[in-house]
Parts: sequence; C-alpha cells; structure tokens
Amino acid sequence: MTDLFQGPKGTRDFLPPAMAVRRYIEDAWRRVSIRFGFQEVDGPTFEPLDLYKVKSGDEIVSQLFSFTDRGGRDLALRPEFTPTLARIVAQFGAGLPKPIKWFAIPRCYRAEQPQKGRLREFIQWNVDFIGEETLTADKECLSVCAAFLFEMGLTTADFVIAWNHRDLMAELLVALGIRPEKLNDTFYVLDRLQKLNPVERQKLLQARDFSVSEQELLELFAVETAVPAGGRTALQDRLQTPTARTAYEKMMQLHDQLVPPELADNFRWDVGLVRGLAYYTGFVFEVADARGENRAIAGGGRYDKLIELFGGKPTPAVGFGMGDVVLEILLRERGLLPEHLGGGPDVFIVNASDDADLTAQWASRLRRSTFDPTVRKITQGGLRVQHSYRATKNIGKLLQEAASAQARFALILAPDELSRSVVKWRDLHARSETELPIAQAETLIRSACLEKGG
Amino acid sequence: MTDLFQGPKGTRDFLPPAMAVRRYIEDAWRRVSIRFGFQEVDGPTFEPLDLYKVKSGDEIVSQLFSFTDRGGRDLALRPEFTPTLARIVAQFGAGLPKPIKWFAIPRCYRAEQPQKGRLREFIQWNVDFIGEETLTADKECLSVCAAFLFEMGLTTADFVIAWNHRDLMAELLVALGIRPEKLNDTFYVLDRLQKLNPVERQKLLQARDFSVSEQELLELFAVETAVPAGGRTALQDRLQTPTARTAYEKMMQLHDQLVPPELADNFRWDVGLVRGLAYYTGFVFEVADARGENRAIAGGGRYDKLIELFGGKPTPAVGFGMGDVVLEILLRERGLLPEHLGGGPDVFIVNASDDADLTAQWASRLRRSTFDPTVRKITQGGLRVQHSYRATKNIGKLLQEAASAQARFALILAPDELSRSVVKWRDLHARSETELPIAQAETLIRSACLEKGG
Repeated sequence: MTDLFQGPKGTRDFLPPAMAVRRYIEDAWRRVSIRFGFQEVDGPTFEPLDLYKVKSGDEIVSQLFSFTDRGGRDLALRPEFTPTLARIVAQFGAGLPKPIKWFAIPRCYRAEQPQKGRLREFIQWNVDFIGEETLTADKECLSVCAAFLFEMGLTTADFVIAWNHRDLMAELLVALGIRPEKLNDTFYVLDRLQKLNPVERQKLLQARDFSVSEQELLELFAVETAVPAGGRTALQDRLQTPTARTAYEKMMQLHDQLVPPELADNFRWDVGLVRGLAYYTGFVFEVADARGENRAIAGGGRYDKLIELFGGKPTPAVGFGMGDVVLEILLRERGLLPEHLGGGPDVFIVNASDDADLTAQWASRLRRSTFDPTVRKITQGGLRVQHSYRATKNIGKLLQEAASAQARFALILAPDELSRSVVKWRDLHARSETELPIAQAETLIRSACLEKGG
Repeated sequence: MTDLFQGPKGTRDFLPPAMAVRRYIEDAWRRVSIRFGFQEVDGPTFEPLDLYKVKSGDEIVSQLFSFTDRGGRDLALRPEFTPTLARIVAQFGAGLPKPIKWFAIPRCYRAEQPQKGRLREFIQWNVDFIGEETLTADKECLSVCAAFLFEMGLTTADFVIAWNHRDLMAELLVALGIRPEKLNDTFYVLDRLQKLNPVERQKLLQARDFSVSEQELLELFAVETAVPAGGRTALQDRLQTPTARTAYEKMMQLHDQLVPPELADNFRWDVGLVRGLAYYTGFVFEVADARGENRAIAGGGRYDKLIELFGGKPTPAVGFGMGDVVLEILLRERGLLPEHLGGGPDVFIVNASDDADLTAQWASRLRRSTFDPTVRKITQGGLRVQHSYRATKNIGKLLQEAASAQARFALILAPDELSRSVVKWRDLHARSETELPIAQAETLIRSACLEKGG
C-alpha cells in the first residue's frame, strides 16, 4: 500500500457537506448580484505575471504562484480578480454601453502562510461598477454588499463598514512630514505595519528610509482609529487643501445617501485603513466583523486609473471583493448556516417486486426532461429520483433509506399493487399514502412534485 | 497609453454573453447529476505533481502546467479530476456509505497547442460511481451522460457511444505478437498513433522498440474500427482466453441493459479506442459526434485499481468526463443554444418624478429578502430590480430601456400618480397597465412577480 497523498498546503477538499456550504454561498452571491442588475463575467485562472507587477502592490506580488509556460511566458495564478477585469474592460469595454455592472466568482490564489480566515486557495465574490464617476456607483456597491450580508441573516449589528480616502491620507501624511513622492510607498508600509510585530516594523521602516518615525505613524492610527459615525471630528480641521476638503465632503455625502439608510450608523472613518492594493485612487472601504474577531469580510474602493493604465480609455471604476473563507467562519460562528443544505430527491423508488429492472425503468421515465427544438427550450424538467442499491425488498427498510435521503415522496412498487395495475404513492412529509393507476402515474407524480417539491 | 495586455494563449475571457452560455451548460450538468442522485464535490486547482506521474499516462504528464511553491514542493495545475477524486476517496472514503456517487465541475488545464475543441483551460463535468463492481455503475454513468445530452436537445441521431475493453485489446495485441509486459506501453502508443502523421508514427514506434510493425497495428484498427452495433462479429472468434471471453460477455450484457434501451443502437465496439489515461482497467468509452466532425464529447471508463494505488482500500470505480469546449461547439453547430440566456429583471423602475431618490428607495424595498433566524432560512426572496442611470424623465425612453433589458414589469413613478398616492404598474408582456395604491404596492408587486416571473 502506497502512502496517502495529501492535498497541497492551504487548499481544501470539498466533500459533499463542504461543497453544499460553498454552493449556498456562491448561489447567494450570484442571486443578489443579479437582483441588482449585475451580469456575471470571468477570466482565465492565470494571467501574464506583468499584469500584477504593474499595480497590484508589493505584498500581492510577493505572494504569487508563478510559473513559466513552454513558450517561455511568465504567468501567475490570479491572486485577485480586479487586474483581469481591468484588462478585459481595457480590451473590450469601449464598445459596451455604460455603466458596466459586472460580478464574478473566481477562485484566487495567494502563496501566504495558511491561518484562520486565510488559505492559499479561496473563492472571492467581485462586484464592479464601471464607467460612472459619481457616488451612484460607490453607493450601489455598498448596497449590494450589505444586501448579501442581510440575505445570509446578518444584521447591521453584525458588521461595520470602515472607510478611508487616499486624498485624506495624503494630506495627513504630508502634514506629518512624508514627502509627496513617498506617499504610495507609505500606503504599503502603513498597511503592512499593522500586521507586523515591533521588530519587523522597525526593520521595514529602516529599509524604506522614512522621514517620519514609527512612533509618529503609529500615533496617527492609535489616536484616530474609530472616528465615530459620520466622522465629523477635530480631524476634519487638519484638512487644509481643497483636494482633501473636497474628498471629505464627498465622503460625507456618501454617508448621507447610503441605501438602506441604516448603513450610515455602521459607516466609520478609519484612518488606519489603507488597503494594500496600489491601484486604489480615492475611496476605500472594508466590511468588518462588528465584534472585531475576524479578518475583513469584504474590501474594495475606487480604481479610476487602472483601466487606462492597462491601455483602455480613461474609465472610472469602483468595486469590492468578498472571500468565502472568513464569511463561512462568521456564518458558522453566528449559527446562520442552514442545517439541511442541498436537499433530497423528489421521489425515492422503493422496489419490492420481483422485477429488479422496474427500478431503472421508472427512474428513467421520471428523470426525463423534454427539450422543444422549435423554441430551443426545456419545456418540461425531469424529477430528482433516487433508489436503493441494496438487494433487499423489505419496504420498511427501503422507506428508512428514503427518509434518510430526505426524499419528498416514495413510489412503492409492490407485487400486490402491480398485479392490480397500480403503484403506491407515499407523501413522506404528510405520512399519507394513496394508490395511482399505472397508466396515469407519471402525470400524477410529475404534478405532485411540481406542486409540493422544492 | 500602455500596450493592451492580452489574456494567456488558449484561455478565454468570459464576457456576459459567453458567461451565460457557460452557466447554461454548468447549470444543466449540475441539475442532471442531482436528478440522478449524484452529490457535488471539488478539490484544489493544483495538486502534488507526483499525483499525476503515478498513473495519468505520459501524454498528460507532458502537458502539465507545473510549478514549485516557496516550500520547494512540486505542484501542477490539474489536467483532469480523476486523480484528485481518487486521492480524496483514498483518504476519506473508508467512512462513507457505498456506493459513493459524486460529480464535479472543475476547471482543468493542459499545456497543449490550442485548436478547435481544445483549449489550455477548460471546464470538465466529472461523474463517478465508486464502490460498485457490477454493471449497475457502468450503466448509470452512461445513463446520466445520455440524459444530459438529451437535456441539451441532442438526440440518439446526434451521437454514438464507442466502447472498448482493455482485456479484449490485450488479447488482440498479444495475438499480434506484443509481449504482455509491453501492453501498457502499447496502449499509450496506440492512442498517440492515431493523432500523428506517418513520420512521427515511425519515430514513435522505433523509439518504443516494438516487436510488431506499424503496418500490423494499423491494420487492426483500419479493418476493425466501427464494428456494428452489439459488436457480434468475426472478431469475437479471435478471443481465446477466459479473461477476454468474460470481458466480452460482460460488454454484451451492458449493451443489452442500457437505459434508455435506444442507447444500445448507438453503442459500438471500436477497437481503435484506447483512451490515453494509464489508470483504466477494463471498460472504456467515448461519446462522439455522430457526424464524425468533432473531437470526443465525453470519455471515461473503469479505474478499479487507482484508489488502492493512492493508498486507499481496494475500491472499484467507473466514471467519465465531458468538457465544455467541444460541447459548446456542437450545440452551436446544431442550433441548440437558447437565444435568450440569463433573462431580464422582474421589475424595471421608471422614475419620471422630480425626486431622484425614489428610484433607490423603491429598488431597495423590492430587492429586500427576509431571513428567518429561527429556521435559518430565507422565507421571502428579493426581486430582480433594474433602473436607468440616465438623467431623463421621459417615460417612453425609459420604457424602451426596460424592454431592451428584457424586464417583465415596469413600475412607473410619475408626478400625477404620486400626488394621488398611486404608482403605475405595466405588464411588459401583456402590454397592459394598471394603478397600484402606494400602501399596498410592495405586496401586490411581489405577488405579481412570484406568479408571472421566471
């Protein structure tokens, strides 16, 4: 016997119960996106390595799974979806009506140390509103994100939306003595600082040659993090330039216009929020567990220059991503995952007759759908049908198997009834039984399942 | 302006129309699998390189996208799903009730030359019936495969099922003079031979040191390919060993028991069918375009030793894979792809009032779902709602936009009606209009959409 192979570090095997949870989440992402009028897109699992080097930021590039194909091209597994989206819009977007409202549910990959809420392979819902520079786009992104969380049973008591703005950060950092040309670098460092221990922090700051001390940077966060709702505080007075003032006013407008309005209570300026991705141009946000116990649930912001940078027309854009790993932990912790996911068959066939072939015949008949080629449509769907693979004809045992498969109905084929040209039809919820004439059985079964099934 | 980035060779960008086709196919794969009682599973996108070296065969290994992670582990993007499935069953299968009926819809990767029907990244439906050595399993795999093709509007006139069996091939090849220890190598060569030009063929045969000439091998195929339905021909008389005779009888039983029975007319012994994968142990099959114009639509077979080889208990298994690329070409060629995929919103809001905020308020109200935490379930879904992003209040133009979005209903907010506390409600299919009192509007709209919507 060979040693067991193990799946790669930081990846998951989705056996049926885990897969049912994944489907529950993915289906809801899709459903809510479509409800808001977003259309689904996707791209390749890997992209040219350069696509990420341009503007994703040092942290992401350091975590790429990269490889070379046989033609010598450098490729990388996608660590996120925004670069793919921007590449596609740069290439095809000119001919599309604006705004472009797209969502995607890609698997993404980061070669980082696996830990609670972070895996090397994860699934990330992406929602992007492209070609609209007004707050309409930012507002709608926040609305669809919140609508999904509500759909999962979370309430405004469960999460907060932390926001920040590059223009405000720039002003505050320049006031601290950071040189303007050092700003982008500083955003990266600020994002990293909060994840490092003191020794690592000191190293990073020295390596980057900052004109401001760790102390001063940390003070900015320590004092000002968690500005109360609306963010109307003394910090406002430190904003001197027209750019920063305009940005601040815009953020206050966004606060006042959130839909549903109760989101405003959860909308907080967090000066410590940077977001590692180098392509953000203004508004950034993160949705976080209100208890502060988990990593960010979702994050995003404005990337008004990225599509142009990738060779497209200048196109403003805003979007966010939400990973499945933290979300699933949160739903599990809050007891919000439904108990029975997936569901059972419409019909479980209990064959107690001497003719074993009857099972396959009935199953085939009931599972059959009708495709009408003239309208190119399925005009009648097939039923979900299961049966036992055991040799027994014991009706009691077979009905137990039907129940544990969570079947809605049982079709019982027994010698006595068959000799009278009928079959038994059992409603496993109502625990009632009736007889169906064989000639009409298929029609009656189909309408019963259509009416009562799910 | 930067040069446009291009997506990697052999991959696809799925813009909304392409994504709608992909969803149409994936949803049907999932629906039909569940109808037959298969449960969905998945695994990582990449696996240890060794998983494929053990038993996938030389051709697949030569086409791997492989890379090394930061821990020095050799990994490869999955070229197919069966090794992952066998690894998972080897690891977790002992505790699961048998038979195990699983399906998966993974993306897979092969670094081969892109051409019609072959891409470097594709999606492959996998259906596997595990833990059952009788024909029950083989039959059900063929049934679910055919049921899907019927679901897409294909008929038995559109496809054939070519079958072969390793034990029969072994006997025929040994009779030709191939040494038994050379058989596995020969299967690989046979599979390759049919894809090569004469010069490449000659090279391959010399490199592999065969005791039999190209001529003799090719004769076996040229003469015997396309044995008529049932395969009851003179070839049968060349089968001398009990092993081969047993295998042949089993294949005839399978032929006679196919469900639905009309599949038997399409079930043909093809001596030229080898399947490149080295893990097959007996029965193998391919579903092909009856017109012979495309590559195989699906292929699979028995792999009774693979789970044991991966360290699990001896576990018989049979399954097949079907890729999205050839399937989509076939459906398009046959004119079977539905014209309108995806569908429009339930409600399009036409706001002709002076209050622009009304749009977002109504949209939010109608999109809202209700999650009941006591039963952990969504008890009322939200509606799919869209609206215009243009500044116009022209009802005619906005109704045009509603129609081109394929909306089912339009909710018209106009000053005159609003002043009378009503809204207009237009059925865009029936082209009829009515007024709804604002106080009851949400309830009435929800039930109209539930009743008439899709």
